[in-house]
Amino acid sequence: MRALYIGRFQPFHNGHLEVVKNILSEHEELIIAIGSAQESHTPKNPFTAGERFEMIRATIAQEPYDLSKIYMVPVEDVKRNAIWVAHVRSVVPKFDIVYTNEPLTRFLFEEEGYKVQETRLFSRSEFSSTNIRKMILEGKSWDNLVSIPTKRIILKIGGIDRIKRINSNDIK
Amino acid sequence: MRALYIGRFQPFHNGHLEVVKNILSEHEELIIAIGSAQESHTPKNPFTAGERFEMIRATIAQEPYDLSKIYMVPVEDVKRNAIWVAHVRSVVPKFDIVYTNEPLTRFLFEEEGYKVQETRLFSRSEFSSTNIRKMILEGKSWDNLVSIPTKRIILKIGGIDRIKRINSNDIK
Amino acid sequence: MRALYIGRFQPFHNGHLEVVKNILSEHEELIIAIGSAQESHTPKNPFTAGERFEMIRATIAQEPYDLSKIYMVPVEDVKRNAIWVAHVRSVVPKFDIVYTNEPLTRFLFEEEGYKVQETRLFSRSEFSSTNIRKMILEGKSWDNLVSIPTKRIILKIGGIDRIKRINSNDIK
Amino acid sequence: MRALYIGRFQPFHNGHLEVVKNILSEHEELIIAIGSAQESHTPKNPFTAGERFEMIRATIAQEPYDLSKIYMVPVEDVKRNAIWVAHVRSVVPKFDIVYTNEPLTRFLFEEEGYKVQETRLFSRSEFSSTNIRKMILEGKSWDNLVSIPTKRIILKIGGIDRIKRINSNDIK
Amino acid sequence: MRALYIGRFQPFHNGHLEVVKNILSEHEELIIAIGSAQESHTPKNPFTAGERFEMIRATIAQEPYDLSKIYMVPVEDVKRNAIWVAHVRSVVPKFDIVYTNEPLTRFLFEEEGYKVQETRLFSRSEFSSTNIRKMILEGKSWDNLVSIPTKRIILKIGGIDRIKRINSNDIK
Amino acid sequence: MRALYIGRFQPFHNGHLEVVKNILSEHEELIIAIGSAQESHTPKNPFTAGERFEMIRATIAQEPYDLSKIYMVPVEDVKRNAIWVAHVRSVVPKFDIVYTNEPLTRFLFEEEGYKVQETRLFSRSEFSSTNIRKMILEGKSWDNLVSIPTKRIILKIGGIDRIKRINSNDIK
Repeated sequence: MRALYIGRFQPFHNGHLEVVKNILSEHEELIIAIGSAQESHTPKNPFTAGERFEMIRATIAQEPYDLSKIYMVPVEDVKRNAIWVAHVRSVVPKFDIVYTNEPLTRFLFEEEGYKVQETRLFSRSEFSSTNIRKMILEGKSWDNLVSIPTKRIILKIGGIDRIKRINSNDIK
Repeated sequence: MRALYIGRFQPFHNGHLEVVKNILSEHEELIIAIGSAQESHTPKNPFTAGERFEMIRATIAQEPYDLSKIYMVPVEDVKRNAIWVAHVRSVVPKFDIVYTNEPLTRFLFEEEGYKVQETRLFSRSEFSSTNIRKMILEGKSWDNLVSIPTKRIILKIGGIDRIKRINSNDIK
Repeated sequence: MRALYIGRFQPFHNGHLEVVKNILSEHEELIIAIGSAQESHTPKNPFTAGERFEMIRATIAQEPYDLSKIYMVPVEDVKRNAIWVAHVRSVVPKFDIVYTNEPLTRFLFEEEGYKVQETRLFSRSEFSSTNIRKMILEGKSWDNLVSIPTKRIILKIGGIDRIKRINSNDIK
Repeated sequence: MRALYIGRFQPFHNGHLEVVKNILSEHEELIIAIGSAQESHTPKNPFTAGERFEMIRATIAQEPYDLSKIYMVPVEDVKRNAIWVAHVRSVVPKFDIVYTNEPLTRFLFEEEGYKVQETRLFSRSEFSSTNIRKMILEGKSWDNLVSIPTKRIILKIGGIDRIKRINSNDIK
Repeated sequence: MRALYIGRFQPFHNGHLEVVKNILSEHEELIIAIGSAQESHTPKNPFTAGERFEMIRATIAQEPYDLSKIYMVPVEDVKRNAIWVAHVRSVVPKFDIVYTNEPLTRFLFEEEGYKVQETRLFSRSEFSSTNIRKMILEGKSWDNLVSIPTKRIILKIGGIDRIKRINSNDIK
Repeated sequence: MRALYIGRFQPFHNGHLEVVKNILSEHEELIIAIGSAQESHTPKNPFTAGERFEMIRATIAQEPYDLSKIYMVPVEDVKRNAIWVAHVRSVVPKFDIVYTNEPLTRFLFEEEGYKVQETRLFSRSEFSSTNIRKMILEGKSWDNLVSIPTKRIILKIGGIDRIKRINSNDIK
């Protein structure tokens, strides 16, 4: 069985990693779809798809998994909910089950007849990308919420400065 | 050093595999960008990005490579050459050198200051996706030009029938 | 004279039906343009254009009108106000007068020299799609605000569940 | 049972009308999807969706059919074959069977599990929109190939002049 | 040296003119990029790119500048921050330095290695397009904040009425 | 009176310059719309809008014209003929008459009620951008067909090499 796990991963954090571990304990293969791949440099989507790809890869490479069983695929938005599932299906390898915590994603896949599972993210308020972006913005300590490789990538690309600067933007 | 190898891979064949081998003999990591990811079911682009992803993965999985060093990334077209390199750069992990046989791709990356290498595809007339699609269409023997897993995927998804039917289309 | 009546009809309700009746008491033919046709599964636009088409058709089929005088046409957005009127004009049959309650629509058609009439929606606060979606969401009684066929379609497609689920979505 | 008949209808001719008659002899309701709705003023697509809508409506209004059983819906292209069926499905009412003579359309709907019928267009070389556009361009007699209302519409909108002028265009 | 000054200029006001003067006191040539060129008839973007072009031109024509050194270029959005700089670069003449007060614009150009200067808009709260649109909407005196030619253009195109009407829009 | 002159100017040549001169002998002001602004690096559209802007500007700056009367505006395609005129009108300043040699452009503006004049390009076969691109490609002498500034810009941006390389492209 191959599972599909969809998220935006802005950034990829330890809660996401737990989901990956849970899925891999039940399924042989996993596709991680990096959603809203065309977005970057906005308060909600600070990182490019390429940067998010590297965070996920570097984090998982530290774990005892066979990387040949884990596929990462950037997926751009189509902005039309009625065709979104068909779009996802066309750019990723075949899959048997969907994991997501996002209600709309869940609903759209269920309407198309897919089996969808919640991801059982524990203590969501803490392990949430929204929360982490907010902590970075406010200068609070956030690095214990992500893997060391993710932290290193965020620092290397100037991610802290980026988040602060794109949030000072009041126009666009 | 991480290399970027861009192609449409319609389908992925043994010539492509040789390029992959050559690049991996010189560079530690390789990103395979699956171009025109949004295209499928046309004479020039019969297979979806997801199907091409599976062909590449299954082919490389047979070789003695560490799959954690090889990244496959579907890349949609932007239809504006002047921004195409920026687009590619935003959806794939960072890379140091580009491999391609396509003159326009080569030119656009060189204009942006990238080092670009030709892929040394030997006997191009035979090992070409265009040629393979033509052979499938004409009912000639083509399966010695692709890997066994690629052949199996093409057969499983009804690829031969698909190529014949989309080529009988004279309107759209 | 042929009138154009533009709305999103999310869903089509008895206030809309009154407008249709009023227009048909003054004009021989009527085009009902179903706006934002590409939108669906969002809090503001829960239903697809096809679903809205069926609601309108089934509702009007109950009334003593000659359906050959009433045209329903889904119209996608173009997201550029300056060309929106030209876009509408290109996808619907010719028309002589425009009916709408939406200030921007009214303004854009007037700028292009069209005669525009307000629709005299009585007791707007009650007969409003926004209000009906809110009542469905809150579990209040809404079915006396739409026709019996519209109610039946909403129930058949799982519209109540859909509205609740897409409103629980906090991310996309 | 409700049938879907897809075409571009550039213009709608007597062969199309025969197909409509055949379908209505077997099915209760019919959706006529006017494809490539966004196209106009090109050699292959001279007429706007609105103009084509009027041709079809005026032609069928002459026949002894209940127009409340026949739905006409303009459908814009999405330019991605893998999501095209989902797109069509979202903008038209529900349907049970598809009629088309276009091989790609047939194939895409079959891949999604729909039953598809050929339209049995007799003497295709004569009753073809391509042929009619060519005859108009060359000043040959074409009006016996379309209904009188379609002819009248083509004349009223200056269709003959339009076809000649857009074909003299060698650049765009 | 040629400078690039990017803004939306909704409308062009005396603060913008001061920036233009400051830049021209330091650089030989100036490109004024009219951003979000595709937007119009919205509360944030009431004027078309063509109207804004005329405001800027007419205002500068009154000043003692050589208009052959000042280029005005409408620039449409691409809605993808990662490729936005490449997009701007492809539609305007070459430039050496960027002027903007918008933090995101500044950041994106800096990431691409451009030198970016703030525009030193004095008393921003007064000389701001947002403020001027608000004053027009509320019927307050605004005409001392723009040049006489800009005022004349706004009046001629019915700009006051337009701003009031598009702000009464509660739906789209 | 303000005239609009539309072309792609790939590249701007002496025939175009003659047209500009003719128009300015009859009209006070001139807008030069640089069409297909989003295109570049293709055999038919080798130069970016910014490069074409510079060619036109540098050429006209040599002539005894008041540059404040001549506006250059890049215009992107919308790919929908029925709304193209509305699109052009929204991004350029107001105009009274249109000059073009392109039959479709002429037709679309006439359908919208504009007065359109042919440009009286003499000896078209020689003074044509298509011809010049072909001569550059074949290594023939072309520089007497363009102004000295245009030639200098083409050389500076590596235009000869670019045209040769993008024409060796057989795939994209």
